[in-house]
Amino acid sequence: MSNLHFTEQDESYMAMAIELAKKGRFTTAPNPNVGCVIVANNIVVGEGFHFKAGEPHAEVHALAMAETKAINATCYVTLEPCSHFGRTPPCALALTKAGVKRVVIAMVDPNPKVAGRGIKILEDAGIEVQVGLLEKEANALNLGFIKRMKTKTARISVKLASSLDGKTALENGQSQWITGPQARIDVQHYRALHNAILTGSGTVMSDDPSLNVRFAELQKSPVFNDEINESQLRQPIRIILDSHNKLTLKEKLLNLTGKVILVSLSPRADLEKLHCVADVEQIIGKDDGHGRIDLNALLVQLNEYEINDIWVESGAKLAGEFFNQQLVDQFILYQAPKLMGDRGRNLVNLPNYSKMDDVVQLTLKDVTVIGDDIRIISDRD
Amino acid sequence: MSNLHFTEQDESYMAMAIELAKKGRFTTAPNPNVGCVIVANNIVVGEGFHFKAGEPHAEVHALAMAETKAINATCYVTLEPCSHFGRTPPCALALTKAGVKRVVIAMVDPNPKVAGRGIKILEDAGIEVQVGLLEKEANALNLGFIKRMKTKTARISVKLASSLDGKTALENGQSQWITGPQARIDVQHYRALHNAILTGSGTVMSDDPSLNVRFAELQKSPVFNDEINESQLRQPIRIILDSHNKLTLKEKLLNLTGKVILVSLSPRADLEKLHCVADVEQIIGKDDGHGRIDLNALLVQLNEYEINDIWVESGAKLAGEFFNQQLVDQFILYQAPKLMGDRGRNLVNLPNYSKMDDVVQLTLKDVTVIGDDIRIISDRD
Repeated sequence: MSNLHFTEQDESYMAMAIELAKKGRFTTAPNPNVGCVIVANNIVVGEGFHFKAGEPHAEVHALAMAETKAINATCYVTLEPCSHFGRTPPCALALTKAGVKRVVIAMVDPNPKVAGRGIKILEDAGIEVQVGLLEKEANALNLGFIKRMKTKTARISVKLASSLDGKTALENGQSQWITGPQARIDVQHYRALHNAILTGSGTVMSDDPSLNVRFAELQKSPVFNDEINESQLRQPIRIILDSHNKLTLKEKLLNLTGKVILVSLSPRADLEKLHCVADVEQIIGKDDGHGRIDLNALLVQLNEYEINDIWVESGAKLAGEFFNQQLVDQFILYQAPKLMGDRGRNLVNLPNYSKMDDVVQLTLKDVTVIGDDIRIISDRD
Repeated sequence: MSNLHFTEQDESYMAMAIELAKKGRFTTAPNPNVGCVIVANNIVVGEGFHFKAGEPHAEVHALAMAETKAINATCYVTLEPCSHFGRTPPCALALTKAGVKRVVIAMVDPNPKVAGRGIKILEDAGIEVQVGLLEKEANALNLGFIKRMKTKTARISVKLASSLDGKTALENGQSQWITGPQARIDVQHYRALHNAILTGSGTVMSDDPSLNVRFAELQKSPVFNDEINESQLRQPIRIILDSHNKLTLKEKLLNLTGKVILVSLSPRADLEKLHCVADVEQIIGKDDGHGRIDLNALLVQLNEYEINDIWVESGAKLAGEFFNQQLVDQFILYQAPKLMGDRGRNLVNLPNYSKMDDVVQLTLKDVTVIGDDIRIISDRD
């Protein structure tokens, strides 16, 4: 195994594989996005990407297309081929059987328990293996999956929207619409990319949001490229933090298809008799000592649902808790070019800091004008 | 006079003239920025720009360079040549005498009383005159001058700096530094471009700012191109709103070279005896009925100082007054990727709006990452 001597051609084939992998970004979860290109005599003879759990892996698609042309070919794959018999036979074995000569891998399997096993199968079969080409780009394909594999908790993105002076509503609560239609379409795109949407019961009871993806809106996004049709759309799991069972159970989001997880500190009996469209489940959270749900413990609890990434659309309190407990991986802020003034409602509740060094420090990742508004993406420092 | 049939060559020469005009942007006030290019047989035979009031106009420089090659040449000038005997003889006459055949003008003189007179002199002399080429770009060279000519009040730019959640300081007042060094250098560049800096006595007494331009800082700006040396640097007039004469007169900005205008509601006797480095003058403002200085009236009063543009660096109250009274032409907000929380101090004080339609609506003009921070430029709708 070596990570040296990648040619420009190697790089362009791996870039192709990365583009292929992206086609699965709305559907592969809990699996990762993977793309594969097989090249013989400088001609692409096979390509594939993973579309959905239970369906063939990227390498299987590419090998099926290449047929016997895979013999002595080079295989470019964005993630280490799997080594286990799961829903499909191990891809490392399939590549070995197909007679490829060389396998170039962008990154090793992020799960520490399996990392390297796929590579070992290939090397044991005498295949030349190289690792690390466009590793950063491959990593970016699966930030949530990688975090979950490594930490057993989902990646957290917090989304908020405000005026330029950081206000989310007027003093009387009026807030529709701060941002414009393009920003709202962009939010639909992000929701579709995430496995779950999380909010608090306060937001649900005051706004009665759907918290789902409307395909017609998603289609309007300039970064949606018809990767999926309406029947392939995955609705994110809606996770509602309702410590004290305040929801009336008549809320709109309970009557939309998809799964809803209610997180409370005590069970509610009326769930059993509830007839609603959504598949509703309650889980009991841990009390954080202040009568609220312990967020750290919740993220560990949620691991059993194999959720790679959670999109938090909440009010100032819950968002503040995520920041204050340093649980935020990514912050997406939509800002409308408006000023709402000091009487407006604040973006995020945080402790009363006494030193500038103590405030939440972020690093800008992307600043883009979306319609009439600004989208600011930042990461935790 | 016609504004039709501009060729690609016409456009490229006018673009040259516009670039020349920009070289005067730190120095021409109260005069406008003007650039001029003279072209004979498709060769540039003369070029010039206005550098400073009292020094020759752009056309004079270009004609001096062209000498007799100006005969039958085309002159491209970003602003209608002047028609009056002021500190220099009228340029329209100079062009006529030099024997140019055609004059292409980007925009007419914005002063309604003189607009068209320069053109008339040229046309009366049989010169072909065309107007309107790159008019928008020429307009952008002199937004402050144009506003002052048309309305007799200066263009107002309000600058503020905050965290992403719109906070300017912690509850205890601590605020240094919200934004990073690159943003602060950018502010130096803006200060140098403006004729005056305006703030309130509250800001002066709490922060004791210099409110001047430090040449060494200006030089660090990536958009400063050595247009001026240190001796050519113009210090903006510092306008301090001090309704009730609260300044101690020991403030730092009174001991820095340049002019300071104190605006109060009543005269203070101690100014006469004051010995300080700055040239300090007091003007008496009009009471707005609430014991504060009437900003509309002040802008009219300031017209006698021939200030084209004012850079407002103030606290939340005064900035809010400018917005609330719809006096802001441009808003420049520097945002640091930090969250300071609901306990922090607010960006701008505004009335308690009851409808979203009533809030201050702006239009984004430019969003740029400056160092680690974001600069958002917006205009009043």
